[in-house]
Amino acid sequence: MSKPKPIEYADAPAEVKAVFDDIKTSRNLQDVNNFWKYLANDPKTLKRTWESVKEVMAPGALDPVVKEMVYLAVSVTNNCGYCIASHSAAAAKAGMTQEQFGELMAVVGMANETNRLVNGYRVPIDPAFEK
Amino acid sequence: MSKPKPIEYADAPAEVKAVFDDIKTSRNLQDVNNFWKYLANDPKTLKRTWESVKEVMAPGALDPVVKEMVYLAVSVTNNCGYCIASHSAAAAKAGMTQEQFGELMAVVGMANETNRLVNGYRVPIDPAFEK
Amino acid sequence: MSKPKPIEYADAPAEVKAVFDDIKTSRNLQDVNNFWKYLANDPKTLKRTWESVKEVMAPGALDPVVKEMVYLAVSVTNNCGYCIASHSAAAAKAGMTQEQFGELMAVVGMANETNRLVNGYRVPIDPAFEK
Amino acid sequence: MSKPKPIEYADAPAEVKAVFDDIKTSRNLQDVNNFWKYLANDPKTLKRTWESVKEVMAPGALDPVVKEMVYLAVSVTNNCGYCIASHSAAAAKAGMTQEQFGELMAVVGMANETNRLVNGYRVPIDPAFEK
Amino acid sequence: MSKPKPIEYADAPAEVKAVFDDIKTSRNLQDVNNFWKYLANDPKTLKRTWESVKEVMAPGALDPVVKEMVYLAVSVTNNCGYCIASHSAAAAKAGMTQEQFGELMAVVGMANETNRLVNGYRVPIDPAFEK
Amino acid sequence: MSKPKPIEYADAPAEVKAVFDDIKTSRNLQDVNNFWKYLANDPKTLKRTWESVKEVMAPGALDPVVKEMVYLAVSVTNNCGYCIASHSAAAAKAGMTQEQFGELMAVVGMANETNRLVNGYRVPIDPAFEK
Repeated sequence: MSKPKPIEYADAPAEVKAVFDDIKTSRNLQDVNNFWKYLANDPKTLKRTWESVKEVMAPGALDPVVKEMVYLAVSVTNNCGYCIASHSAAAAKAGMTQEQFGELMAVVGMANETNRLVNGYRVPIDPAFEK
Repeated sequence: MSKPKPIEYADAPAEVKAVFDDIKTSRNLQDVNNFWKYLANDPKTLKRTWESVKEVMAPGALDPVVKEMVYLAVSVTNNCGYCIASHSAAAAKAGMTQEQFGELMAVVGMANETNRLVNGYRVPIDPAFEK
Repeated sequence: MSKPKPIEYADAPAEVKAVFDDIKTSRNLQDVNNFWKYLANDPKTLKRTWESVKEVMAPGALDPVVKEMVYLAVSVTNNCGYCIASHSAAAAKAGMTQEQFGELMAVVGMANETNRLVNGYRVPIDPAFEK
Repeated sequence: MSKPKPIEYADAPAEVKAVFDDIKTSRNLQDVNNFWKYLANDPKTLKRTWESVKEVMAPGALDPVVKEMVYLAVSVTNNCGYCIASHSAAAAKAGMTQEQFGELMAVVGMANETNRLVNGYRVPIDPAFEK
Repeated sequence: MSKPKPIEYADAPAEVKAVFDDIKTSRNLQDVNNFWKYLANDPKTLKRTWESVKEVMAPGALDPVVKEMVYLAVSVTNNCGYCIASHSAAAAKAGMTQEQFGELMAVVGMANETNRLVNGYRVPIDPAFEK
Repeated sequence: MSKPKPIEYADAPAEVKAVFDDIKTSRNLQDVNNFWKYLANDPKTLKRTWESVKEVMAPGALDPVVKEMVYLAVSVTNNCGYCIASHSAAAAKAGMTQEQFGELMAVVGMANETNRLVNGYRVPIDPAFEK
């Protein structure tokens, strides 16, 4: 196999087109993002991932903007450049303000710092947290 | 040096006691958590970390419960056991329900999965996300 | 020191040339990859790393293509762009098909997801797994 | 909410019991592992995760033992203790020998090492890997 | 919000200018690096981060060059491209030689490898290390 | 295969005994640590790892205590509990003071924080760092 390439709608098999159509309808888009075009190389993974993302990111006990900010927090922690770009855009579209972005980054930075202080000092869990 | 040990209030120097007092007052606690007792081995880091955490986690453009859930999301991604336990407790105290916890974990899991799909398929950033 | 630069064969000291020759012979290549040209800045690390890689990646109880896919799985988890590109190529050369690549990415994604669900739910190890 | 607790079959709602039954039948088990008992706190995530895992880990272009070894490689890279224990057991059950485990760990270790050498030396991708 | 953009000195509010001035004076620079120009989008985080970095990286029980090498070791482990570039430069400026850089990378690589061997073999802590 | 178990000197094959003897002599120890006893399940990996560690951690352009502190910094970043315990002990034995440990942890924490601020703000590399 060679380097993965995107599958465009016009060249996609029917099962891929069906997923692309559902993404475009659900999200009110003209075209799907590169993520979906690359996943389309494996139609089963495309379908499973889209259905999971659709279910997980739907409004529920958490607001969509909170879910997008959490997605962004994880992507920043993992340093996934594409994911940071796409979920920054998605969070902004869902209502995240610049001030909220600033606070989000501050929390993500602080959590990554204190996670390591805890590791290095080998802090045992307080009994109160085990209940 | 030997394995880090907690510094209890009674044995702490004045500069540590001052920080412990501020933590207990700010958070309405009888005693500080193990994290602070271990950081007290380095009074400068204790003071700097507490002041940073106090500023970053204060109510602002984001609700405190959202901040705690983001902290938890990062800690889960990094697998910091102590941090997961303490910020689960803090998020619950700030109002996170069990249903919200379930959705939070679902988002964190999904983000960690799709971050790697993006890496493996070497997905280039859509021009729309670069604006 | 300035930014690391590649050491080309013509400019390399004898100890580096000897390693480059062994890489080219063992892998039937006209030239070594950038990875080795950069490591050549530290001849001891070049030699130690090549000898370790040669031993570890040799056919054994695991097929070379399986070893390359595992290498790729780790590189995707760590988001090492160079390593993803080079080990995708190496796995393909060793026989990985596009369908196998798709399944590999699906497993890597799923493992990264469930690793975090385990962390967040603080799942204790079943006694059966401790034997 | 308090610390997550396992949901046993006898106490589970019907939708959880249905998933537990399918896991037990598919894998020929008397009882499900702790992972599923904890996920059962969120029946939607339990169902979605089980269906995804069942699809992804099924025999396909890759042998089940290879898939389990890749799962283990990711879990070792992420240091998920529960996942290392459960997927070591699953890989062994699928046929992984002790010699294969040794070679797997050697590859995982080497990949984690060279991933960082690449990062530190800032190695650019060879044009040949971009095709 | 759109993609973060750098704040140049001329366009910065007074509180940002004050931090930029302190960075330039403390480090004897004509202009601040991109890191600070981007953080300037959130003046509170800019100020808090600069004050923390200034305190932490100051000469103390550890030499500044050792601190910069440790910063680089963490950045290489996390694969933060910007951080690797900027702290390589900072370490070189503080006196790191090319030979020291080579040894540093060798240690970082080895630590990342043996960390995973420990995880995979599930090595229990020797009682002697718990004192 | 079952859960990995330690190989004690008395039960070890000759090739393992030879490595154990070299570790004990080189480090002036009565017995080897658990890490080596577990690696002994794969004699080739035991031998290769020991020889690499011996070469990499030897005095050179960097002091042994600096190398141990870097090893600890990586282990803390990766949250490897065993490695944190063993390399804290090794660093202390090599001369690390409690004050140096405190500063080391402060740098590791700060680096992990700013690595993520860089990721989230998508900071481009300054041209000066590319030389």
